[in-house]
Amino acid sequence: MSHITSVQKWLADNNYDIAYISDFMDIQYFTGFSSDPVERVLALFIFPDKDPFIFAPALEVEAVKETGWKYPVFGYLDHEDAFAKIRDHIVDIAGTPQKWAIEKNNLTVEKFASLKKQFPNAEFTGNVTPFVEQLKLFKTPEEIKDLEIAGQWADKAFEIGFNALSKGQTEQDIVAEIEYQLKLQGIMHMSFDTLIQSGANAAEAHGAPRKTNIQPNQLCLFDLGVIYNGYISDATRTVAFGEVSQHAEDVYQVCLEAQLTAQAAAKPGITAAQLDKIARDIIEKAGYGEYFNHRLGHGMGQSEHEFPSIMAGNDLELQPGMCFSIEPGIYIPGDVGVRIEDCVHITENGAEPFTHTSKKLQVLPIK
Amino acid sequence: MSHITSVQKWLADNNYDIAYISDFMDIQYFTGFSSDPVERVLALFIFPDKDPFIFAPALEVEAVKETGWKYPVFGYLDHEDAFAKIRDHIVDIAGTPQKWAIEKNNLTVEKFASLKKQFPNAEFTGNVTPFVEQLKLFKTPEEIKDLEIAGQWADKAFEIGFNALSKGQTEQDIVAEIEYQLKLQGIMHMSFDTLIQSGANAAEAHGAPRKTNIQPNQLCLFDLGVIYNGYISDATRTVAFGEVSQHAEDVYQVCLEAQLTAQAAAKPGITAAQLDKIARDIIEKAGYGEYFNHRLGHGMGQSEHEFPSIMAGNDLELQPGMCFSIEPGIYIPGDVGVRIEDCVHITENGAEPFTHTSKKLQVLPIK
Repeated sequence: MSHITSVQKWLADNNYDIAYISDFMDIQYFTGFSSDPVERVLALFIFPDKDPFIFAPALEVEAVKETGWKYPVFGYLDHEDAFAKIRDHIVDIAGTPQKWAIEKNNLTVEKFASLKKQFPNAEFTGNVTPFVEQLKLFKTPEEIKDLEIAGQWADKAFEIGFNALSKGQTEQDIVAEIEYQLKLQGIMHMSFDTLIQSGANAAEAHGAPRKTNIQPNQLCLFDLGVIYNGYISDATRTVAFGEVSQHAEDVYQVCLEAQLTAQAAAKPGITAAQLDKIARDIIEKAGYGEYFNHRLGHGMGQSEHEFPSIMAGNDLELQPGMCFSIEPGIYIPGDVGVRIEDCVHITENGAEPFTHTSKKLQVLPIK
Repeated sequence: MSHITSVQKWLADNNYDIAYISDFMDIQYFTGFSSDPVERVLALFIFPDKDPFIFAPALEVEAVKETGWKYPVFGYLDHEDAFAKIRDHIVDIAGTPQKWAIEKNNLTVEKFASLKKQFPNAEFTGNVTPFVEQLKLFKTPEEIKDLEIAGQWADKAFEIGFNALSKGQTEQDIVAEIEYQLKLQGIMHMSFDTLIQSGANAAEAHGAPRKTNIQPNQLCLFDLGVIYNGYISDATRTVAFGEVSQHAEDVYQVCLEAQLTAQAAAKPGITAAQLDKIARDIIEKAGYGEYFNHRLGHGMGQSEHEFPSIMAGNDLELQPGMCFSIEPGIYIPGDVGVRIEDCVHITENGAEPFTHTSKKLQVLPIK
């Protein structure tokens, strides 16, 4: 069943006449058309038993068609009343819908007021957000395939970064090198700002790559990912640049054990909270509990802001198709920072990672 | 007067008790703290006669303090009820505000419902969005300075790109080269996806840099900009890669005349619509009117989505401090595309551009 068909069924089951999808990431999910309209109006309307349509700024209409969208797309010009045009199109297709489902976590107060003005007698009690989140929670085989390819590019990015690590380079230089090499191979977008942090900088929760030369005999953290066909990768490796102290290596091994143990335990039936606790217990037992100050992982797919959240209090049971990060970290301020992260998808048999770069502590030569 | 003081005065003048700033770009504008909270709650509350405060995810609190924010910042954890905590902080500071001004073009229906639940007897009729837009319309000397530096980096980016242009390179390669060289110099963010389009690709409104070798004896369009200290640059140059046809050169000269004439006419007192018409008349008179299918320019500052919009129907008179692009374009499908763009700020005497790369048709050697 296509994602749009799922919404149509949900509308019918819940006696809604229309769904108004306004979040541009959700529009990309349903249609393949990707564009942030910023202040303009971009909308997808879905009906229980009629064809859906897209409403977009006029200058985007051709781009929508180029994605292969097989249903109508209607445009509007900047000086036109977008919601008056929306009403006309809806009335043409489906009469005057009474019961609406909107995206309450996305639609703005202003656009909602404009919509209500056009449909003064309608009910807007429905919220389609939770259903869309639920749909997005389970990735299809096609989505998994894109996530795997995005993961392969993250592995390549690590290789580029590890090779580039040298005394003459800054953290920012390594970022530049990784993104340069990927762009030359056609990967034009990272999924978030590439993070390279060495030594104590890796313990800074809000650190960023610095413009000072990387010092040898320290750990160096790489957190990165790319966007491939609208799907992301996100992975972290911490490597040794030359020989590091026994203390730094100890911290690394604790973090690694937490990561490997949690990843091995991730399978259908265990809850998100239980998985978080498995990793957290190991770090706490080693005495570093206070330095693991974030959840174990986040859901991912089109972005790193999806469900499920792998954290205390989330009693959601893992099921096949769910995709998320497993990323314990130990950040001792002014001293050392380690994080090790794979994103995985759950199968009947366990967790399959999207990235395969070795997690054993790699000691890179000082050059 | 600081930007926050301006809002305080506006609140007092309009008898509002509190303003709720929810747009993270506006929070950056008022506080210097830059972070997209995505699904979390990030808010700035301003009172007519009390100190403002920031409410943020707990993991962002230290980062807010590091920006030098001298007023309170309160955090919340993911499992806490953000709006219940917001209510408590507000009541501590200012009792129970009755008359609210919110950002109606940003606040979501869901967050607004959560807010109203905490203040069931309050009035939420005020909309602070138009006042913030008005404030942002006039850049301070400090902002102009950042915009000038961002412009200097765009000039450097053109130089890098023009030098890199060669037969062995793809459009994507040139993008990679520009961004690589800038990152090595510490400029880590472009203001939008760098656009390099050669030949007929430059006539594609939704074109993107391609992965095929650039052919000589064609025009090549560069549209780019960087972010410097939270402020952007945005400029376009179209150059000849080797000798181009007389037709292509003619199209270029028409576009250049439109750009130069509009830039010379941009000064206090002329309206946005008049400025658009000056450029459009030149292109129409030359017979290319149908191929100039967008407004003359957009406002800019922290992003390229600000006011004033330089287009037909906008009777706003230009005034000192306004910043916007002047970017006529001629796009003949399957044939040739030209755009020439400077962003400028209006002074008493006219328009000062932020970029200074020559606009005379540059013929770059084939190599």
